[in-house]
Amino acid sequence: MTEKIRIAIAGYGNLGRGTEAAVAQSADMTLTGIYTRRDPSGVQPLDAAVPVRRLDDIDAHRDEIDVLILCGGSRNDLPEQGPALAARFNTVDSFDTHARIPQYFEAVDVAARAGGTVALISVGWDPGLFSLNRLFGEAILPQGETYTFWGKGLSQGHSDAVRRVPGVKAAVQYTVPSPEAIEQVRSGARPVLSTRQKHTRECFVVLQEGADADQVREAIVTMPDYFADYDTTVTFISEETLQREHSAMPHGGFVIRSGESGTGEKQVVEYSLTLESNPGFTSSVLVAYARAAHRLSRAGERGARTVFDIAPALLSPRTPEELRRDLL
Amino acid sequence: MTEKIRIAIAGYGNLGRGTEAAVAQSADMTLTGIYTRRDPSGVQPLDAAVPVRRLDDIDAHRDEIDVLILCGGSRNDLPEQGPALAARFNTVDSFDTHARIPQYFEAVDVAARAGGTVALISVGWDPGLFSLNRLFGEAILPQGETYTFWGKGLSQGHSDAVRRVPGVKAAVQYTVPSPEAIEQVRSGARPVLSTRQKHTRECFVVLQEGADADQVREAIVTMPDYFADYDTTVTFISEETLQREHSAMPHGGFVIRSGESGTGEKQVVEYSLTLESNPGFTSSVLVAYARAAHRLSRAGERGARTVFDIAPALLSPRTPEELRRDLL
Repeated sequence: MTEKIRIAIAGYGNLGRGTEAAVAQSADMTLTGIYTRRDPSGVQPLDAAVPVRRLDDIDAHRDEIDVLILCGGSRNDLPEQGPALAARFNTVDSFDTHARIPQYFEAVDVAARAGGTVALISVGWDPGLFSLNRLFGEAILPQGETYTFWGKGLSQGHSDAVRRVPGVKAAVQYTVPSPEAIEQVRSGARPVLSTRQKHTRECFVVLQEGADADQVREAIVTMPDYFADYDTTVTFISEETLQREHSAMPHGGFVIRSGESGTGEKQVVEYSLTLESNPGFTSSVLVAYARAAHRLSRAGERGARTVFDIAPALLSPRTPEELRRDLL
Repeated sequence: MTEKIRIAIAGYGNLGRGTEAAVAQSADMTLTGIYTRRDPSGVQPLDAAVPVRRLDDIDAHRDEIDVLILCGGSRNDLPEQGPALAARFNTVDSFDTHARIPQYFEAVDVAARAGGTVALISVGWDPGLFSLNRLFGEAILPQGETYTFWGKGLSQGHSDAVRRVPGVKAAVQYTVPSPEAIEQVRSGARPVLSTRQKHTRECFVVLQEGADADQVREAIVTMPDYFADYDTTVTFISEETLQREHSAMPHGGFVIRSGESGTGEKQVVEYSLTLESNPGFTSSVLVAYARAAHRLSRAGERGARTVFDIAPALLSPRTPEELRRDLL
């Protein structure tokens, strides 16, 4: 039996908790610590035996950590934590602000090269597994179109936007892909689809006492960037209903490449996810890529990487011989 | 503009023709020759400007070939050609006899290491892209089940088996996945499915004159290994109907991983292909992986590889910066 890969977690929200659980499913890994910016005594890990420590104290535990999984948010945590921690640890993160990936990659790459570490950025399902399928799609069928649909799923960013509307006490927003659009794409037709044709948005809103429902609805459906370009429904519900029916975090979506062979035939490739828990699945992806980060580091590699750079065999605990025999 | 990757093709059947067409879709590649065991004067490439030569003469053209794509069959051609040609060229092949992959890998690996070449074996969609999805599925969701369904599609091996039945003049066989079984798996239920529950088989048969239809049907549906374990339908048709309605080579299928996060939620990942042309798509995959073979060879790598060993970025003609910016 080879030694277990020693994982640590930085940040303990939904993603951190999911990561703890995913490490527990991995026989070749062990969790050596959870590091938090909160008071550690207020954090209850799933396994009470796992030490919870202050993130500020993490340097004292460098020799207990092969890979540090960063479970902070892309907006406030990772832009600073990513480079800072990659300078001292092999890291895996799920940075998902698409537009800022190039500059984030650069910052992490500089830190990781200087620190002699491997840092996998933007790991998860989008960015992540969906990105891989976009790449495979256009590399294999260069003549064609790629379509990404999201949902049905809870969008954190859009839910936050609804919550900022005056008169809203609480809210969730679901992104719903259009079944008609998906069927059209699946048929190999390669339609040009507007934003409105691809997805609809469903909001479930709890009003503050005395708020005007019509005014709130209008403020939501006309909100630029978030809702104005979509068909949006707003349903007002009670706080109890919100708690009872809308506290799960399902998500998913589709990447479809519709293309044509050199000899003229239609070829359609579809990748889809149906997730009962978005953070639960993202954690599972992070943990598989932590295995790859550890192996790359052992092999002497240095610097930032993305899912595009990782040979799939590195994700599996099985040997190359087993993989060829059982899965090829 | 960097120099184009110089591709050559060994074997010019459906797969070779598809490969020629797929190279023509790739702006960073050029086809420098088609090599055949037939009389070259009898071979008509899609592009008349491409030289067609005897496979026996290929060594005289080594300095015109960066990667040789092997388009022969797995039963009779590749077991011999694969190692022999990997000793002298970087190769990509679609060896698909699952049970023999380990020994084929060894033979090609020895030849490629001795020859200082890179040889990618078993590239296509199954083995190939389906294998990748089986690996990703179990690496990311270690607690779960993987289901592979094939079809609806023309099976060459099963069609050949029907053609060997006395009284059969011509025939095709389609493998059809059970919609009920797929729906069950998609639901996250993780059923245990028998061979009979997963697929049905549809045969379209042209009888020889005087042959007894009932006898032929009985011989087909009771044939061990090929049909006895399946629900099989046999439809007798005229030779004209066979030509008119059954000369395309559609195929496809599904790889579904149904698993559970560490925190208990159901997560379902599905990869599916709907192909108007099986050899057309396989060729497209071979050509994308030829790009990877060339890059690995340039980077000094040596030996046999499978799709498991190839970082996805190597398949794309785009730079790592472009991939991160546009596809991640």
